[in-house]
Amino acid sequence: MGRWEPNARGRMAEAALQLYSEHGYEQTTVAEIARRAGLTERTFFRHYADKREVLFAGSGELEELFVRAVAGAPESAAPIDAVAAGLDAVAQMFAGRREYARRRHAVITATPELKERELIKLASMSAALAGTLRRRGVAEPAASLTAEAGIAVFKVGFERWAAAAEEREMSQVMREALDELRAVTAGGR
Amino acid sequence: MGRWEPNARGRMAEAALQLYSEHGYEQTTVAEIARRAGLTERTFFRHYADKREVLFAGSGELEELFVRAVAGAPESAAPIDAVAAGLDAVAQMFAGRREYARRRHAVITATPELKERELIKLASMSAALAGTLRRRGVAEPAASLTAEAGIAVFKVGFERWAAAAEEREMSQVMREALDELRAVTAGGR
Repeated sequence: MGRWEPNARGRMAEAALQLYSEHGYEQTTVAEIARRAGLTERTFFRHYADKREVLFAGSGELEELFVRAVAGAPESAAPIDAVAAGLDAVAQMFAGRREYARRRHAVITATPELKERELIKLASMSAALAGTLRRRGVAEPAASLTAEAGIAVFKVGFERWAAAAEEREMSQVMREALDELRAVTAGGR
Repeated sequence: MGRWEPNARGRMAEAALQLYSEHGYEQTTVAEIARRAGLTERTFFRHYADKREVLFAGSGELEELFVRAVAGAPESAAPIDAVAAGLDAVAQMFAGRREYARRRHAVITATPELKERELIKLASMSAALAGTLRRRGVAEPAASLTAEAGIAVFKVGFERWAAAAEEREMSQVMREALDELRAVTAGGR
């Protein structure tokens, strides 16, 4: 291990985001990301497997937070309310991070390889939530469907919250998206 | 173009599925797939970009069928009922194909690269459904949330239908999954 580099991960993520925005993901190399962050390529590879991973540093933390909040919801809470508690916890984590999230979302939307990675992240979160709900005693397929519903709300809510003109807090946007999902699934028949 | 090869696409998909099951996806080459199908590599690449695509030959057809059924639902139908009509149409398409679907699903589940491709397929279907619902006059975020709900039901329902012991028809499994989604989202509060 080399000398201590303060906030190396954050600096590399910010450098990567800048370069992907300026030149595109395909055109950017790990060497350029490391240089812009004032670090070496070796340091980059100590933290990330490749240039796709650098924008997903927070995925593990996000999933853990979501899962922990669902697991920690009152035993009496309905599965969908446990998931709502998870969405609320996640929304707290994004407080004050909208500008970064917007820039990151724009780059991901423009880059098929990053969009794929984002889908993998969401599928992993969904599987983790379903497992947590089963441990709360929820049977299948209810556990998987509730988890998928939660991820649908997170995905659609996140996009709304990150949209250019949006100013409401994420927690409010997520609650509205969940209410809307309840309304659309209750409709018809 | 070479001579006419009857059902070249289907033969290559079946050959790929056999080889992926026997030796694993990583270990299988396009040359081996073509040989087992009794065709040339050139023919393979006339039909598929690479060995990942060969198991997704029907994705376009599936999405089109789903979208067409949603678009063609009665004008008065609630968005979720239009999606239910789409699920029903999709279920008809899979009638008599459970054995193939089971084998394909097992290979995909065991192969990260194919799982990614499956996620891309589902995301594409969701986006297409949301667009179709907007053209039916459904506002956002209701359109995207209804589409995501439909894909959640398709994903969870498909896995149930493809499970080893399952004998019910796909249309029934899908209807039950949709009812279950309605029940879980209606719970709590």
